[in-house]
Amino acid sequence: MLETIKAIGVLDYDKWLEPKRFDYTPRDMRPVDVDIKIIACGICGSDIHCAKGDWGRPYAPIAVGHEIVGHIVALGDEVDKSKFHIGDRVGVGAQCDSCSSCWRCVNGFQNNCDEQQTTYGSTYPDGTNNQGGYANYIRISNRFVFKIPDALDTLSAAPLMCGGITGFKPLLSAGVKKGTKVGVRGIGGIGHMCILFAKAMGAEVTAISRSDRKKELAKKLGADHYIATSNPEFPASYKDKFDVVVNTASTFDASQVKSVMSTLRPSGKFVFITAPPISVKLEFEPFFMLHGSYSIGGSAIGSPADIEYMLQFAADNKIKPWVETMDINEADVCTAWKRMESGDVKFRFVLTGYDKYFV
Amino acid sequence: MLETIKAIGVLDYDKWLEPKRFDYTPRDMRPVDVDIKIIACGICGSDIHCAKGDWGRPYAPIAVGHEIVGHIVALGDEVDKSKFHIGDRVGVGAQCDSCSSCWRCVNGFQNNCDEQQTTYGSTYPDGTNNQGGYANYIRISNRFVFKIPDALDTLSAAPLMCGGITGFKPLLSAGVKKGTKVGVRGIGGIGHMCILFAKAMGAEVTAISRSDRKKELAKKLGADHYIATSNPEFPASYKDKFDVVVNTASTFDASQVKSVMSTLRPSGKFVFITAPPISVKLEFEPFFMLHGSYSIGGSAIGSPADIEYMLQFAADNKIKPWVETMDINEADVCTAWKRMESGDVKFRFVLTGYDKYFV
Repeated sequence: MLETIKAIGVLDYDKWLEPKRFDYTPRDMRPVDVDIKIIACGICGSDIHCAKGDWGRPYAPIAVGHEIVGHIVALGDEVDKSKFHIGDRVGVGAQCDSCSSCWRCVNGFQNNCDEQQTTYGSTYPDGTNNQGGYANYIRISNRFVFKIPDALDTLSAAPLMCGGITGFKPLLSAGVKKGTKVGVRGIGGIGHMCILFAKAMGAEVTAISRSDRKKELAKKLGADHYIATSNPEFPASYKDKFDVVVNTASTFDASQVKSVMSTLRPSGKFVFITAPPISVKLEFEPFFMLHGSYSIGGSAIGSPADIEYMLQFAADNKIKPWVETMDINEADVCTAWKRMESGDVKFRFVLTGYDKYFV
Repeated sequence: MLETIKAIGVLDYDKWLEPKRFDYTPRDMRPVDVDIKIIACGICGSDIHCAKGDWGRPYAPIAVGHEIVGHIVALGDEVDKSKFHIGDRVGVGAQCDSCSSCWRCVNGFQNNCDEQQTTYGSTYPDGTNNQGGYANYIRISNRFVFKIPDALDTLSAAPLMCGGITGFKPLLSAGVKKGTKVGVRGIGGIGHMCILFAKAMGAEVTAISRSDRKKELAKKLGADHYIATSNPEFPASYKDKFDVVVNTASTFDASQVKSVMSTLRPSGKFVFITAPPISVKLEFEPFFMLHGSYSIGGSAIGSPADIEYMLQFAADNKIKPWVETMDINEADVCTAWKRMESGDVKFRFVLTGYDKYFV
């Protein structure tokens, strides 16, 4: 019986860069829950947004982390035993629950449920604060637990659980296929996976970044073309280039959106998958949108069915995110967060060494 | 030889509600041009936006009107004589030319060409001001002239040329088919045609208007449901209702957009086809768009291929816009514009009596 979970997290938002060890008591196990012993967790940009309080200060202590891979160690009474088994290697992403009864949940849009629970940063109706994957265990509804195909190694699977699905879903929704002209703006954790997926779908992919600094990296990732938005010829020389642009840059403003949108083909789509700080609103000019028949939209992670599809797609297409491992401990989490803040990671940290640290 | 065209238009934007007779000399006939003797012209909301100067004051005198039906009376040397013949009944819409050479023109997006010419309100590179359909003739490139199928009567065809394609295209782009849940906001000239088209495509259609005033009309148009946005239960009681909402209301602001968008299903689209005055910008909250995976976009008329497809679709599906005829003359144009300003038309005026007035 899992009575205490050991974690690292933010105890004081004013000192968010000093993550500390803490213990918490998990919610009583529900019949739908499984317990997972964590072996790896990717570090998502959301972890830092949350730790810094960009999206509010939900509670403390808070353990972030929602790119979790581990093994099932306990199964609730109602969990389908033909689907999940003790010892299964499974993943958990950014969402840990949804209401199961609204139109969205019933129709496969659980990721858009109003009552959805995020893996960390949200509070259950019973008052329990959800805690994430910078911890030795997690107790979570089996509806948001996904078996990892054997062909996918753990370090590849971890970042797919949030960053991967976030970059995959807009490609899926836009119907990207052989020959689709895809721009990926922001060559970071999510962006690099988006490039890998778009290439695997057969798209012609352009990496879009501020400077030329990531040009060689983008080529190594498989991007067919590269655009530096600091180039004075941008955007004028890049007209009618894209059917869809996925904006993965963590911050963006209205003028950036407009200049990138002006590289879309008519009826092209600009899809953003990250949120700027909560106070930022975006403004656009109706005539500009009309003239190009452009659209702009958000895309939020993916549904359980999308995640299952993505994991199999990744296995089948040998998708391999670029990962740097870090040991889970206070100092290394701090280092990883600092390096992410300065863009010094290519392209995803994955925390490992759980058994060594959580003794 | 057509040396003078007789027209009615705005001579002074400050007295836009006093349209006057004037003559103008058409541009020399190019090999691609045809001359059309006009027999009918729908009155589009754009006519009034232009006459009022909402979108600038391009030149005066200006004859508006871009829902034109007439007969070909002359063909330029390069016009395909197997396609067009003297006497053919043809239509002209809001666009009269495009550059023919840019990526957009070559790929079937002539309606999004940067160098496009609007039927009125734009000036040719040679300095000629384009004049519209409140006139006895029009000289125009055959590329933007469309044969009207015999099964479509002239009064039905006229409003389709701009309002019709404007309401049709977003349904086409959104892939509306049997069972698609379509909302049409704004039950006016364009909106009522959008309802007729969406129904003919097999969609489940909801008319969305401010008050209950148009409820019976919407039912007569074939709408399956009706929503009054003044209802205190709107939007909360109308969650997850629409795959796509076409916004045809001539003015809209960010809060209206948000409340209507909150009735979309996840991944739903809000498409606007009209432009508010040029100073208006729209603002949206990224988190709101992310949460619902919503998108918002503009849709500008349609390409020549879209217009041909729409005319045949309208003929095949017996689409019959609701039309009230008005004689073309200074007094009746003024009356029609005044009545449109007060929303007193169900749903489209078509100017007729050209032969009687332009003697």
